[in-house]
Amino acid sequence: MRLRNVRGAKEKIESNDKVILNPKEYRGIFNTLFNTGNDKLCIEIGMGKGKFIRDMAIKYPDVNFIGLEKFDSVMVRALEKTEGLDIPNLKYIREDATCINEIFDHEIDTIYLNFSDPWPKNRHAIRRLTSINFLKKYDDIFKGTKHIIFKTDNRHLFEFSVKELTDYDYKIDELILDLYNEDTSDNVSTEYEDKFSSKGDIIYKIEVHK
Amino acid sequence: MRLRNVRGAKEKIESNDKVILNPKEYRGIFNTLFNTGNDKLCIEIGMGKGKFIRDMAIKYPDVNFIGLEKFDSVMVRALEKTEGLDIPNLKYIREDATCINEIFDHEIDTIYLNFSDPWPKNRHAIRRLTSINFLKKYDDIFKGTKHIIFKTDNRHLFEFSVKELTDYDYKIDELILDLYNEDTSDNVSTEYEDKFSSKGDIIYKIEVHK
Repeated sequence: MRLRNVRGAKEKIESNDKVILNPKEYRGIFNTLFNTGNDKLCIEIGMGKGKFIRDMAIKYPDVNFIGLEKFDSVMVRALEKTEGLDIPNLKYIREDATCINEIFDHEIDTIYLNFSDPWPKNRHAIRRLTSINFLKKYDDIFKGTKHIIFKTDNRHLFEFSVKELTDYDYKIDELILDLYNEDTSDNVSTEYEDKFSSKGDIIYKIEVHK
Repeated sequence: MRLRNVRGAKEKIESNDKVILNPKEYRGIFNTLFNTGNDKLCIEIGMGKGKFIRDMAIKYPDVNFIGLEKFDSVMVRALEKTEGLDIPNLKYIREDATCINEIFDHEIDTIYLNFSDPWPKNRHAIRRLTSINFLKKYDDIFKGTKHIIFKTDNRHLFEFSVKELTDYDYKIDELILDLYNEDTSDNVSTEYEDKFSSKGDIIYKIEVHK
């Protein structure tokens, strides 16, 4: 995600009622923040400009969704795109994923990871959101069955991720090595995905559980 | 593999001293058939015209290799290509893989599967050489650590295979989703692989153990 400084981003985030400002206060009870009565809570870590999580929330009103994004300047774009929309099952948190297990506590059903930063250098591998380092943190936030759905156009990141996930005893529900050569009628895309799939780039997808 | 009837194929196979004619008689003692003193025994199931297993045997003289092929007409092509060559660590068996565990008994180090028949229909999935059906048979032929190396250009077969192997608790040593965009200086290719990689087709590779 290329970053540009956005004037007043911090203020816009703090004054938006879709944003959970002090998330650690709601650890273990995030579903009580929604007036939906939904039991299921799914998150996207690194939502970028938020198209995916917004479209998911609209498509699945019976599920609560929280989009996490670490950069103010990116988060504010996601907020602009939901301005005036009534999506009661969607909220946002501006936090870094490194403290994900200090935010949530055994309350998440599914983690979505889309086009995460590939951190191509080997010495940065532990920063990848599909590394064992993060998979261990996720253990503490899942409610029951652990369930991760990951998409990327980065081949090396995908190869790494399949290995990490299966090393950590996740089992594969679905593996697709060229998503846009399959039936994508049920697929919810990200901004980035739309751009690169339309150029003909290969998009990889894996869904796992344990 | 497109098949053509080859006149006298059966006779040519039976008169070639590289072919083990009654393999079930050597169950558990195949290494004694080689005058090499090698301990390691690796096999390729479905060797086709045999380029891969021949090149492997030449490259690794300290390992015994057996190439299996079920069709007489294909096997005879492999024999023609080793005529006059002195490769003491290479032998052939003309048998179908369905009885692989009646041929070998806890004596194999590595199984190579290259461009296996994809059997694209779901009802034929149990015929795929990477299906659980075959993985169970392989359990009985490995000496110690189970070790499989698989290459294909068939995306759906590869997706299926990664799932089957990891479902059966194999761990991934190496996963490459575009072999010819990596350093292939150490790669030993098959006839089929040379043809399709030179056309720019994606070649997938996975190496697993358990």
